Amino acid sequence: MNDSPLLSKDPQAIAMALLGRTPLFAAISRDTLNTLAAAALLRRYERDAQLFQAGDQPEYLHILVHGSVQLSAGTPDGREAVVELLHPIDTFIMAAVLTSQPYLMSARAVEPAQVLLLPARVLLAELKTNPELALTLLGSMAQQYRHMVREIKDLRLRTASQRLAVYLLHLVESAGSEQARLPCDKKLLAARLGMTPESLSRAISELRNHGVNVRGDEVRITDLQTLHDFCRLDQLLDTLERDLKVMLPTEE
Amino acid sequence: MNDSPLLSKDPQAIAMALLGRTPLFAAISRDTLNTLAAAALLRRYERDAQLFQAGDQPEYLHILVHGSVQLSAGTPDGREAVVELLHPIDTFIMAAVLTSQPYLMSARAVEPAQVLLLPARVLLAELKTNPELALTLLGSMAQQYRHMVREIKDLRLRTASQRLAVYLLHLVESAGSEQARLPCDKKLLAARLGMTPESLSRAISELRNHGVNVRGDEVRITDLQTLHDFCRLDQLLDTLERDLKVMLPTEE
Repeated sequence: MNDSPLLSKDPQAIAMALLGRTPLFAAISRDTLNTLAAAALLRRYERDAQLFQAGDQPEYLHILVHGSVQLSAGTPDGREAVVELLHPIDTFIMAAVLTSQPYLMSARAVEPAQVLLLPARVLLAELKTNPELALTLLGSMAQQYRHMVREIKDLRLRTASQRLAVYLLHLVESAGSEQARLPCDKKLLAARLGMTPESLSRAISELRNHGVNVRGDEVRITDLQTLHDFCRLDQLLDTLERDLKVMLPTEE
Repeated sequence: MNDSPLLSKDPQAIAMALLGRTPLFAAISRDTLNTLAAAALLRRYERDAQLFQAGDQPEYLHILVHGSVQLSAGTPDGREAVVELLHPIDTFIMAAVLTSQPYLMSARAVEPAQVLLLPARVLLAELKTNPELALTLLGSMAQQYRHMVREIKDLRLRTASQRLAVYLLHLVESAGSEQARLPCDKKLLAARLGMTPESLSRAISELRNHGVNVRGDEVRITDLQTLHDFCRLDQLLDTLERDLKVMLPTEE
């Protein structure tokens, strides 16, 4: 594996290298990865290209290896809610693949993107005989479920300004400093946080009194404690969970 | 198995009978069920009893066999959001058990309840050697994840009145008639739908013009088409999914 496996000429070697860097597959045996890699496709999408639409039947498990993708839901009258903004290396739309049920959300590239596609048929056939893979996906689904519970708590219990404050706090903490850049434009950010662009502007103004300044796409924390207090930070709700494995007892 | 297994004197026979009626375990072999039943506990809760608190470490997979339980999230300043209202036979809090992470929600009996408790340790140990069980739980987690995605779409894209309309439509459809009774008091219903009791009253009044009448706890559809139109019913979003299995290809 090297830093630019995409320069290689062998598609299966590329797929193996990408799977090897995917957190979900970190603990999966090379034999299994080889089976999956042999069937994988690497697809490129231009900015604004549609990957799939809500209602389509799932053909592939998607792994975003480059760029950025949004998952969104729409209504017949044209309103749209951005439910997830994905960044590399995120695996997405697993639940639809596992249940062979139509996608509940649509996916669109918000920047040029590369996606590794694992055919659902191959993945499901492999699951049949591979308990290691089944347990890994089970741990991942459980974590994804918990992520959605957090989203619902956030939507139900926090104001728009608090949701923005939590988002900005995570952003600077991920950057490991007191400054960061917004990873997308404000229109998309507003959609992701479930507010109008006007509400986002109001929330940004309000947060100047609560310890964080946003100017253009620059985010700067001015008073961390004040910002924490404003978020009413619930440690349980906001701690990021990274461990994707089912926690098996070591000894019975 | 009979209609009142709880009259039996043998706790393991009771547990077996209850597991046999639990949709999640419908396709699981008797051997596996025997192992789980041998370790299971049946616990009774009075109305308003707390089953567990958010932040507790998960000790048991819970199966509600009688009564009604709410899952809710709270904030330090005392606000509370009811995220789920559970009815028999619902299996709950699986994601916390599988990941050995603290509960994200608190559980309280809203009616006297009986819950079958499967020790997490026994379930996880069984998973280690039982691919059939792993696939079954994987299918269930995927469905639960999709349920949460639907909840988020509902919260993000629908008004309070539309959320009530969808809820009432499901209620009468489940009852298989044009009438039904509310399964809980209006305060709890408001909390479940993410609104204040006052907003619920306003939504009930508004819905009289959109095809449904609520008087006391009686719900009566007056114009089904009008109600459907008002919900802007998205077939994909609102179809209930019953199939809990991972859909494996029949032949490779």
